[in-house]
Amino acid sequence: MVIIKTLIVALGGNALIRPGERGTTKEMVDNLRSPIRQIAELSNEYNIIITHGNGPQVGNLLIQQEATKEVSKMPLEILVAETQGQIGFLIESTLDEELMRLGLDLKKYFLTVLTYVEVDPNDPRFKKPTKPIGPAYNEKHPGFVETSKGWKRVVASPKPKKIIQWKEIKKLMEDNFIVIACGGGGIPVVKEDTQFLGVEAVIDKDLASAKLGEQIDADILLIATDVEKVALNYGKSNETHLNKLSIAKASNYLNEGQFPPGSMGPKVEAVINFLQSGGERGIITSIDRIKDALKGKAGTEFYIKYKKED
Amino acid sequence: MVIIKTLIVALGGNALIRPGERGTTKEMVDNLRSPIRQIAELSNEYNIIITHGNGPQVGNLLIQQEATKEVSKMPLEILVAETQGQIGFLIESTLDEELMRLGLDLKKYFLTVLTYVEVDPNDPRFKKPTKPIGPAYNEKHPGFVETSKGWKRVVASPKPKKIIQWKEIKKLMEDNFIVIACGGGGIPVVKEDTQFLGVEAVIDKDLASAKLGEQIDADILLIATDVEKVALNYGKSNETHLNKLSIAKASNYLNEGQFPPGSMGPKVEAVINFLQSGGERGIITSIDRIKDALKGKAGTEFYIKYKKED
Repeated sequence: MVIIKTLIVALGGNALIRPGERGTTKEMVDNLRSPIRQIAELSNEYNIIITHGNGPQVGNLLIQQEATKEVSKMPLEILVAETQGQIGFLIESTLDEELMRLGLDLKKYFLTVLTYVEVDPNDPRFKKPTKPIGPAYNEKHPGFVETSKGWKRVVASPKPKKIIQWKEIKKLMEDNFIVIACGGGGIPVVKEDTQFLGVEAVIDKDLASAKLGEQIDADILLIATDVEKVALNYGKSNETHLNKLSIAKASNYLNEGQFPPGSMGPKVEAVINFLQSGGERGIITSIDRIKDALKGKAGTEFYIKYKKED
Repeated sequence: MVIIKTLIVALGGNALIRPGERGTTKEMVDNLRSPIRQIAELSNEYNIIITHGNGPQVGNLLIQQEATKEVSKMPLEILVAETQGQIGFLIESTLDEELMRLGLDLKKYFLTVLTYVEVDPNDPRFKKPTKPIGPAYNEKHPGFVETSKGWKRVVASPKPKKIIQWKEIKKLMEDNFIVIACGGGGIPVVKEDTQFLGVEAVIDKDLASAKLGEQIDADILLIATDVEKVALNYGKSNETHLNKLSIAKASNYLNEGQFPPGSMGPKVEAVINFLQSGGERGIITSIDRIKDALKGKAGTEFYIKYKKED
């Protein structure tokens, strides 16, 4: 029996909405075409889980529900659940089309699964909310932070403790499903006795992807974003692109502030977590180079141990 | 090996929002408690698929997105996808809690799966849209219909031709998953060459449930609504509640107009379809009597062949 490796591909926000776009469904599907085509082509070689962000989408839902008092507003975690349906459908139907073109749509099992993620109510990140979301206002309100667009609500981004659907997803991997999961980092919940309570927070989708990888013993975590390689001194004259990086060095660079919190930081952190918890390969690359990066021809590959190539 | 029967429970809108309620998440979860508790208790006895409606919820999303021009509006099928996430999460997390109380949450596999449903672009129902949805306006617009609340957009409700995820759901049944699927009747799509195109329509969730049952060879379709039994002359002095009903008689009553289009009609039609396509049992009952109805102690049970008890 050939053991097929399990690959998690985490699609960043730019896989859906590019700068300057409004996020229409057509734009999102067009942007998904390249990464999803590559994933379809890889589907005989790997067991694949696709995860994705939801930043602009959940922001849009917040703007819409703030715009009217006519209907009851939903708490943030429900809006995250809504984006899992919205984006999940766009990804899955695009995947379906790409598998059809390869004659694989009827041979492959694939599903989008709702995912909720337990967080720790005592996570210190609840005390220091950092994530601005939703509509921008002209004036400050309690729990708001100033952004370049105006005052925005700020929510916590606690660490994912447990992907609740991990055992189901693991089972689906054993059955060779392609699974779309952990949308938007997952619906954040805390467990109280025998109850799940949604919380006003958003979970980083890369950290959630790494946690899922740890729970189901995935082999490869590939984070697909808008740059082909991780860089040192990003945007400066001495910008250096990295082909390979040990996680020891990555941790140092992270501590030195080489990878900013809102962008490359959590991606590098996610890859470090994944490899430290037993993952085999951790890669960061652009959404157009997924296949090349898996072959070692693109992207930044992370290693646990120091390698000569570093 | 014991063969476990597959049971589809279709939860009507009132399982989520009761008359006079605004549809807050607390109301929806409170309303779901009784049917979901029964389903959890039945989960060792049957393989279960839970389907559900989304009428008020998709209407609320339409109202919200009509309320602002700030963000790009989504087509109707995307809003249906959003309600699958929203309601799926409420159902699944409630099921999770009820399984926890029974000590079954870690033993059972259960998932909410995104479902899209192919419809026929030549379905005559596209020519006569009948389903009023979304916000009510004071004046008529093209494609609008007058309702008791005002002028509303009216969309078609085509017949479900194929539940696209049927083979995945069938596989999950073989693995004894509890599955939440076909939310809101499914996301309506038409297939053109190798493309899926969403359509401006809503699919009846009971007809979609029956179609899924046909495709995966389910044994039992139980439609859970707000009345305990199907009635003849409903609301009149000679109202008669039916314990059992042959599908031949049911078809006649349907043609006579005993079961109105927007309410009992499609439920009866769905049960007829399901039994004619090989289903073993078809039941309509209230959300509080699911367990009793399966034991033959409540609800209206439909039969293919004429029985003495009729």
